[in-house]
Amino acid sequence: MIEVAYRFPAGVDAAKQAQIIAVGQTSGSWGARFAERDRALRAHLARVIDVRSEADGSSIARVGFPRENVEGDLATLLTMIFGKYSLAGPARVVGLDLPEDYGTAAKFGVAGLRRLTGVNDRPLFMGIFKPALGLTAADHADLLREVAAAGLDLIKDDEILGDLPDCPTLARVEACRRVIDERRAAHDREIVYAVNLTGPVTRMAGRARALIDAGANALLLNVLVYGYPLLEALAADPAVDVPIFAHPALAGAVGGATDGSSAFGIDYAVLLGTLMRFGGADAVLYPAHYGSLPFARETEFRIRDALRRPLGVRPAAMPVPSAGIHPGVVGRAWCDYGDDVVLNAGSGIFDHPDGPGAGVQAFLAAWERVRAGEPLRADAVPPGPLHTALVKWGGEEAVG
Amino acid sequence: MIEVAYRFPAGVDAAKQAQIIAVGQTSGSWGARFAERDRALRAHLARVIDVRSEADGSSIARVGFPRENVEGDLATLLTMIFGKYSLAGPARVVGLDLPEDYGTAAKFGVAGLRRLTGVNDRPLFMGIFKPALGLTAADHADLLREVAAAGLDLIKDDEILGDLPDCPTLARVEACRRVIDERRAAHDREIVYAVNLTGPVTRMAGRARALIDAGANALLLNVLVYGYPLLEALAADPAVDVPIFAHPALAGAVGGATDGSSAFGIDYAVLLGTLMRFGGADAVLYPAHYGSLPFARETEFRIRDALRRPLGVRPAAMPVPSAGIHPGVVGRAWCDYGDDVVLNAGSGIFDHPDGPGAGVQAFLAAWERVRAGEPLRADAVPPGPLHTALVKWGGEEAVG
Repeated sequence: MIEVAYRFPAGVDAAKQAQIIAVGQTSGSWGARFAERDRALRAHLARVIDVRSEADGSSIARVGFPRENVEGDLATLLTMIFGKYSLAGPARVVGLDLPEDYGTAAKFGVAGLRRLTGVNDRPLFMGIFKPALGLTAADHADLLREVAAAGLDLIKDDEILGDLPDCPTLARVEACRRVIDERRAAHDREIVYAVNLTGPVTRMAGRARALIDAGANALLLNVLVYGYPLLEALAADPAVDVPIFAHPALAGAVGGATDGSSAFGIDYAVLLGTLMRFGGADAVLYPAHYGSLPFARETEFRIRDALRRPLGVRPAAMPVPSAGIHPGVVGRAWCDYGDDVVLNAGSGIFDHPDGPGAGVQAFLAAWERVRAGEPLRADAVPPGPLHTALVKWGGEEAVG
Repeated sequence: MIEVAYRFPAGVDAAKQAQIIAVGQTSGSWGARFAERDRALRAHLARVIDVRSEADGSSIARVGFPRENVEGDLATLLTMIFGKYSLAGPARVVGLDLPEDYGTAAKFGVAGLRRLTGVNDRPLFMGIFKPALGLTAADHADLLREVAAAGLDLIKDDEILGDLPDCPTLARVEACRRVIDERRAAHDREIVYAVNLTGPVTRMAGRARALIDAGANALLLNVLVYGYPLLEALAADPAVDVPIFAHPALAGAVGGATDGSSAFGIDYAVLLGTLMRFGGADAVLYPAHYGSLPFARETEFRIRDALRRPLGVRPAAMPVPSAGIHPGVVGRAWCDYGDDVVLNAGSGIFDHPDGPGAGVQAFLAAWERVRAGEPLRADAVPPGPLHTALVKWGGEEAVG
């Protein structure tokens, strides 16, 4: 059974609405003509599990849908649970429980990303090529060479960098692959570059394969923009044997206020947690509450938990808190996430006053101090990349 | 240039936010390292066109983006205009002006649907197979035979009916195609059946072709669920030589309150109007304000206008107001839309007390009365299918 929790604002008859969902989003009603089909039709109906009132006057109704109504994917699932009904007035999907074997499993997840990067005992550090538009493929390779030499684990395109004439995606992969190979030859470590996959959707699997053939060792996908079905198709494709990083672009248009208070839409933990995980994402980006976007702490933690909670044999997905990440927050992030996290920084690496290599060194030095229980205050840190970063972006006391 | 209007609630510094969008959703900032690249980087920046205050204290900022930043499709467009920024706090996309030749043009549109159905001088009438789940392919064919004999122009699957074992999509098409052919042989008229296209997204073009080969003469697509890119891919595929009906399932999760008051999300006229049209939809379904869903009249009209307004050589798309449509509203709908509209009814046809054939006859009789300037009041109509329908669902005075 597929269980969905809907929240209705005060004043809405939640029991009545839940019943409308249970019938209207499944078989609908039928009359005497199909009376002898009663059992077959009834088997498709959903049922209201319970309705409870919240302290603020809102109500939460849980509805159980037959798994047999859908194709085992996220597209028919979304149509069933919130298709037409999303247009029926204020209602928000605040919970989704899927059978453990539903959807598509990720090929990598937390364990696979550790295997690929060879880093097992600490958070992973990821950069975002900056500036986002206007660089050439050769620029990307030059920047990658600097951050790889400094010890970065992963890097990604900015999500707005598509396949543009002045910086074609294939050219970026080819140029960066040479750097990845150089580093592997020198240090026996793979730096993972998540290249932004864009293009006509029905040709996307072929495009992914071509990029992988050219050396791409990870993909970035704007899942909400292309639709969960593309994530599922790539995750299910045996030829796509690299991790998929899911970007949350456009998620705010569906999630609304990050404290979850919007009357419409779908909760962020469902949108960026449950649905991404059951769609086969290996790692999912979302704003961190200590970052530059005003994201609610509790919302961030619920996404994190949806990505990592045990779910049978399905691998945990890697949380990637992003936006405004700098070396000064490494301690807090470690408190909030432990080791199984990717800390993802754009300007926090590339706008370091001494260049991107120093930006990476600052992160790694911050991690060493955090591991040793030392504070990330500028006045406690000797001169060097970390000190410079803490002066620029601020630091914090020791944690833990 | 691509012009986007963003609305910010009272208290937000709209000029500052617009500037953040213009930079943050394009190149981002850059330092001395790329100073000699200044011109190339600057060419990718968006610019704030203007910011104005509204009477309610909100502000609307218009931002112009270079077309060169995107791939000419809707996916990279959405990532640019509202990707990461959708997560940056309350902001709503309330307007989108695209170059006339942007995106993908529809193959049919209003004129093509008239050509296909052979109906040139009145609104088109469309049915929705009911009940939605639990019928067999043979049931569909039997129902189709009745409504086709009564003179229906078009019919569609319910959007929640996927490719299920008890009613496979291909079997529905095959069974219904025989009825379509019977009717063509008898009356030289094609009844158009929009079959619900579902499945793994990267194989969807092939699946569409297989359904068309089996006789499908239209497709239904849950565009928001699969993503606009699938609409674009199908519309651009020469082998998909049938009209595409875009269903609004899930649109409420992005659009929010139908009066447009939500602080987040994307306005319905952009979501179901502009984006559907530039994605190549031939016809777009959405709730009618006189229907069963609480849809705002002004919102409905703005969707209608976005679908039909002249746009160079791009064909107008057919508006399909839906949900709770019954014969009693035909007059009002004609006032609001004129002839270029598809009136789409599920229970309004299939729950007619005398069966679906009578349901169709009631609609056609309603249209004859409206055309003649006669009221759709039960007490003014002689006994028959229309009278029965008006008694059941209510009617209205003469219009116009």
